[in-house]
Amino acid sequence: MAKTKGGFTLPGEAGYEALTLKMAEKWGADVIRDSDGTELSEEIVQAGYGIYSTICIIREHNEWAKNHPGNLQQSFLMTAPVTANDEVVSIHLMEGFFDGQFVVNDSEESLRYWEVYDRTAEEKLPNGQWCFEKEAGNVVIQKAVPFHNYTVSFLAYRVWEEISMYNHVTNNWDKEHLVPIDPRKKEARDYLYEWLENWCKTHPDTTVVRFTSLFYNFVWIWGSREENRNLYTDWGSYDFTVSPLALEEFEKAYGYALCAEDFINQGKLHVTHMPAGKKQRDYMAFTNRFVVDFGKELVELVHRYGKKAYVFYDDSWVGVEPYSELFPEFGFDGLIKCVFSGYEARLCAGAKVETHELRLHPYLFPVGLGGAPTFSEGGNPVLDAKKYWVSIRRALLRQPVDRIGLGGYLHLTEPYPDFCDYIEQVADEFRTIKEMHGDGGVYTIPCKVAVLHSWGSLRSWTLSGHFHETYMHDLIHINEALSGLPVEVSFISFEDVKAGALKDADVVINAGRAGTAWSGGDAWKDAELVSRIQEWVYKGGVFLGVGEPSAAEGYQDYFRMAQVLGIDEDTGARVCHGRWQYTIDEETKKLLMPEGADVPERPYLMLTDGKARVLAEKNKIPTAVINDFGKGKGIYLSGFSLSNANARMLLNLMLYGMGLPLSQNYLTDNPDAECAYYPGTGKLVVINNSDRQVRTKVQTEKGVREFTLAAFETVIEEA
Amino acid sequence: MAKTKGGFTLPGEAGYEALTLKMAEKWGADVIRDSDGTELSEEIVQAGYGIYSTICIIREHNEWAKNHPGNLQQSFLMTAPVTANDEVVSIHLMEGFFDGQFVVNDSEESLRYWEVYDRTAEEKLPNGQWCFEKEAGNVVIQKAVPFHNYTVSFLAYRVWEEISMYNHVTNNWDKEHLVPIDPRKKEARDYLYEWLENWCKTHPDTTVVRFTSLFYNFVWIWGSREENRNLYTDWGSYDFTVSPLALEEFEKAYGYALCAEDFINQGKLHVTHMPAGKKQRDYMAFTNRFVVDFGKELVELVHRYGKKAYVFYDDSWVGVEPYSELFPEFGFDGLIKCVFSGYEARLCAGAKVETHELRLHPYLFPVGLGGAPTFSEGGNPVLDAKKYWVSIRRALLRQPVDRIGLGGYLHLTEPYPDFCDYIEQVADEFRTIKEMHGDGGVYTIPCKVAVLHSWGSLRSWTLSGHFHETYMHDLIHINEALSGLPVEVSFISFEDVKAGALKDADVVINAGRAGTAWSGGDAWKDAELVSRIQEWVYKGGVFLGVGEPSAAEGYQDYFRMAQVLGIDEDTGARVCHGRWQYTIDEETKKLLMPEGADVPERPYLMLTDGKARVLAEKNKIPTAVINDFGKGKGIYLSGFSLSNANARMLLNLMLYGMGLPLSQNYLTDNPDAECAYYPGTGKLVVINNSDRQVRTKVQTEKGVREFTLAAFETVIEEA
Repeated sequence: MAKTKGGFTLPGEAGYEALTLKMAEKWGADVIRDSDGTELSEEIVQAGYGIYSTICIIREHNEWAKNHPGNLQQSFLMTAPVTANDEVVSIHLMEGFFDGQFVVNDSEESLRYWEVYDRTAEEKLPNGQWCFEKEAGNVVIQKAVPFHNYTVSFLAYRVWEEISMYNHVTNNWDKEHLVPIDPRKKEARDYLYEWLENWCKTHPDTTVVRFTSLFYNFVWIWGSREENRNLYTDWGSYDFTVSPLALEEFEKAYGYALCAEDFINQGKLHVTHMPAGKKQRDYMAFTNRFVVDFGKELVELVHRYGKKAYVFYDDSWVGVEPYSELFPEFGFDGLIKCVFSGYEARLCAGAKVETHELRLHPYLFPVGLGGAPTFSEGGNPVLDAKKYWVSIRRALLRQPVDRIGLGGYLHLTEPYPDFCDYIEQVADEFRTIKEMHGDGGVYTIPCKVAVLHSWGSLRSWTLSGHFHETYMHDLIHINEALSGLPVEVSFISFEDVKAGALKDADVVINAGRAGTAWSGGDAWKDAELVSRIQEWVYKGGVFLGVGEPSAAEGYQDYFRMAQVLGIDEDTGARVCHGRWQYTIDEETKKLLMPEGADVPERPYLMLTDGKARVLAEKNKIPTAVINDFGKGKGIYLSGFSLSNANARMLLNLMLYGMGLPLSQNYLTDNPDAECAYYPGTGKLVVINNSDRQVRTKVQTEKGVREFTLAAFETVIEEA
Repeated sequence: MAKTKGGFTLPGEAGYEALTLKMAEKWGADVIRDSDGTELSEEIVQAGYGIYSTICIIREHNEWAKNHPGNLQQSFLMTAPVTANDEVVSIHLMEGFFDGQFVVNDSEESLRYWEVYDRTAEEKLPNGQWCFEKEAGNVVIQKAVPFHNYTVSFLAYRVWEEISMYNHVTNNWDKEHLVPIDPRKKEARDYLYEWLENWCKTHPDTTVVRFTSLFYNFVWIWGSREENRNLYTDWGSYDFTVSPLALEEFEKAYGYALCAEDFINQGKLHVTHMPAGKKQRDYMAFTNRFVVDFGKELVELVHRYGKKAYVFYDDSWVGVEPYSELFPEFGFDGLIKCVFSGYEARLCAGAKVETHELRLHPYLFPVGLGGAPTFSEGGNPVLDAKKYWVSIRRALLRQPVDRIGLGGYLHLTEPYPDFCDYIEQVADEFRTIKEMHGDGGVYTIPCKVAVLHSWGSLRSWTLSGHFHETYMHDLIHINEALSGLPVEVSFISFEDVKAGALKDADVVINAGRAGTAWSGGDAWKDAELVSRIQEWVYKGGVFLGVGEPSAAEGYQDYFRMAQVLGIDEDTGARVCHGRWQYTIDEETKKLLMPEGADVPERPYLMLTDGKARVLAEKNKIPTAVINDFGKGKGIYLSGFSLSNANARMLLNLMLYGMGLPLSQNYLTDNPDAECAYYPGTGKLVVINNSDRQVRTKVQTEKGVREFTLAAFETVIEEA
């Protein structure tokens, strides 16, 4: 591949100036950045590269915070339930919480929001029935009902910013614990603005201010015990934004008040994976508005100093919401996304912003996120890099980004020359792929796929964070498969369907566990939604359901799309109903399910009327079925796990559902290989997504081509 | 074992008189019976044996039924849903139903009860919006909402009594289809009474009238298609008792009316496995009352002719309810139960009636219930008999019955002399066991177990029919294990708990899928119930939960006993909550779980607070835990499958929970063997429940004894 330059951000490191400049040359970097934990020296800064400077605006202000109490970020916490064995119950608030992270906020304005619940009766106690013993840190309940369970919901300050806390623990840092400032307070806002202005003044060489997100971290509650350090974490939840002031301002803006329970939700809090109610949506919009408003002021300030402002879309990203309508208001010049997976590349690529940049993995850290070694004894960073690149490459063949880069300690790469060589190759490949998109983009099969879930486009591509955090959800496997398939993909909500979104879709995918945001939960109790989709399928649409699609209690069918899918799930009430006998439709199975394709066992499934064709079964229960419904089709899979064979099966099912040929131009005949064709530049890219040599044929307008690809290989030829 | 006689009912067969008398002698029979499909000859009847005559009171009246239309039994049926693709929808009522079984009742009094539903909106249509086209057998709906699904609920006569239908099909009968008469009609009642009186007069040799149950079969709806012949069957449901007259009389008795939907329940009908609401309970009580009232008249009639009246507790058993308070009112002299399993033997043994009799399996039929050969090519009836006897024997060691017997075609046994020898041995064993109980009964460990579910004592031991019909429910495995364990067993309802039933229990077992009658469903939304059990455990009780015990939506914990059990299930809202790390408590595991004991994988389980000791895990999720709660314990198993090792594990868990020694007098040290000690007679019985030779030690008051038992063997010795 031709040697090219640019579009690459290198993590520089003071003390390793020669290495920094050597690698910048090797990898074709045009930008050098600092990282959390590293600094750039004068020599690096003056070497003629663009300079990204990383700032996390809400931390590194410990001194100010100490002198201005009450400006720390807060959250609601709920104690573990305590069973009353007497009429008096004493509950220690901090029992079970990590005291490095939280300190009870027992101010008067905070206490107003505290709530004590009888969780057995699910009733809130009148405030007069309990009191707070400040000294002991206990809430004492009087006249408890014996053998009911009680909880206390309270506000706590966060006294250790979570990413600082995480890096401390992971990288054995021994610095002062950084506290997170809450810009919701005017005093803090003014201070931060002034601080940033001063920062801009004193960093004339910085070309891009890289906000390590903005103000609020995703929720991450730590426990006191080693055996359960991570009590709760969700990359998409807003629990770390609340405070008495926020609640007060919310009430003014929305005309109604929120209480602790609106956040605590019986101790469940509100995970992204569950459908959000109106209050949660309102609170998110309220916070999004706030983050955009103050964020915009900061971006404008940065611009005033002739610098660009990029936002890193991880860590303190809450309220940033790149797919919200407000996002363009920030005025960010770039969005940087740390990526392990193809869907994250698509997420970044699709955001409305000028520059899209990916932070590749592995990070230049001794150990990875899971604690496994990377740049240390036992690690294999080049293999890691290949595997990540295989996931991301196929997504970039579909939709390009503008830049890639790395993060961490550059000096760690020194003992790994094969890694350095491989990154050189990746950087060249990336630049070539970006270029190919230039003239009219990639060829796509006329198949418009709409992924249907509660969040719709607001949470396009991601569920809540990285793949390894959400692997238990079928939909992330599907999104990852889709990220590299030659189809158009959009994300729609149930409201979108009712507003007519189906007219732009050939295939609708609904995938998830019953009751979740991904399946949809109570949204399916809407007859209009159900009949609109039934009509759309009847007239030719393809509804592809995975897991417990469209599941809602209270109706004849548990899957509201059961008549379309030809299959339903027995919640227990149909255990005495007969099960249809069936035989596997071997011919269709062979056509659609490549060798190695697999769908998991799932209990309780039952065919509705015996019409559906069964492609697969486990334990004598159908796991993959196709059902004709009018001119359209329902397709059901009991689950979906990412693999090359399953990604191809997904594509096959969609094409077959639409009546399109499975064998057509610019598709490989080997599921381990994929290809992309760029009509504008006339280039054909064939990739091997496996760690073995593979052969594949590709049918083109000019005839069938044959390829043999080494493990992970990319081949680019004239089509 | 000493040769004894009596307590044995032999199926005689005309044409095989010598065989009948020979086998009666061999098996020690004191009674000869006819069977469905066989007759007794004069020679047999006069041979000096007691004579049981089988009658199914509601069938064999085809001639009368033809001349008295409207007297057939009825049921509500619901059509499969039809999706409207137009404003006019036509639904053929009998589509999908077996027309050999059903004929639409389109009389005026029937039509009043028909209902048409929009199942997408879950709304009943006004009657004016549809009409019945009699000729075509269709309901035609006007002004349908396009792409909503519609169903019709209607009344149908049943024109083929189900057991007759079943035997016809199974045994290739080619007789007239028998119709079932509904005694709810006075005309039918008078006729049946008169018919029975005449029958009594003309059968002077009959000593026992064996009612093949009474009036109403358990529900068994057949479909038109071979691929789904059995649309719906539940041994415990009352769907085959309804009629316009029954509904009218119900309204008079209960002051409110029932409608089709109260039976149809969105097409789910009301399986025994789901909790019953008030209307269902009322209707069952109403029908129970009716069956008892007319049944009692028939029993009195039989008594008047100097005969005894026994009832066979299968087939048309609905409304008989041997564990209802009304049962003794019938005045039956005996209860006969067909048994495959130990729990069925206990069910029979525990009913309030003078004589308890078991009908053993295998039936003397060419094929068994599952369609596998028994007395025909490929069958092994002696092995079948051994396996059934192993299940039943251990139950009889705990609680005796008075009689056993066989059914079917005696002549089929002729080619199987080993079977005939084995039944001789079983009959002797049975009589010996019965005798041992005579003087004070069996020694039982002081452990009182209460199985807690929605039905309580009404449905003691059984769930709904035989083991092979209900094997998918954990509780039937538990009931079967309990049937032979040396503990006291009772069945209690949630109402019983609130009325104080826990004071008589050492261990409470709650086992089942969430939402079912066995787990309890919404009953667990009652705070009083929850706190009463929490208190009882706190003060020393043992709560043993299996599967999804105490599960109810809407609370902090999904398992309402989560704080007691130390484990809960994540319904999706806690997917972002951390999971406690744990290590397996190997020492306790070794103590309580014998080799071969196993609990199944179950997703979504999570420890509540890390206190519980984990005995087993699957796929890194705990599957067996013990949790201290006050002075008592919560014990959780992810599921329970019947095996010798698991039965012993269950016993071990209960004893351990109570703080009793696991090694104590009159327990074997090998889970394949069990023993029973009869202090009154000083006998010790040791049984081998496996098909292999086993060795076991038994600790007695006089020291440790050792036994070596052949496969299936029973050893009886002086203790």
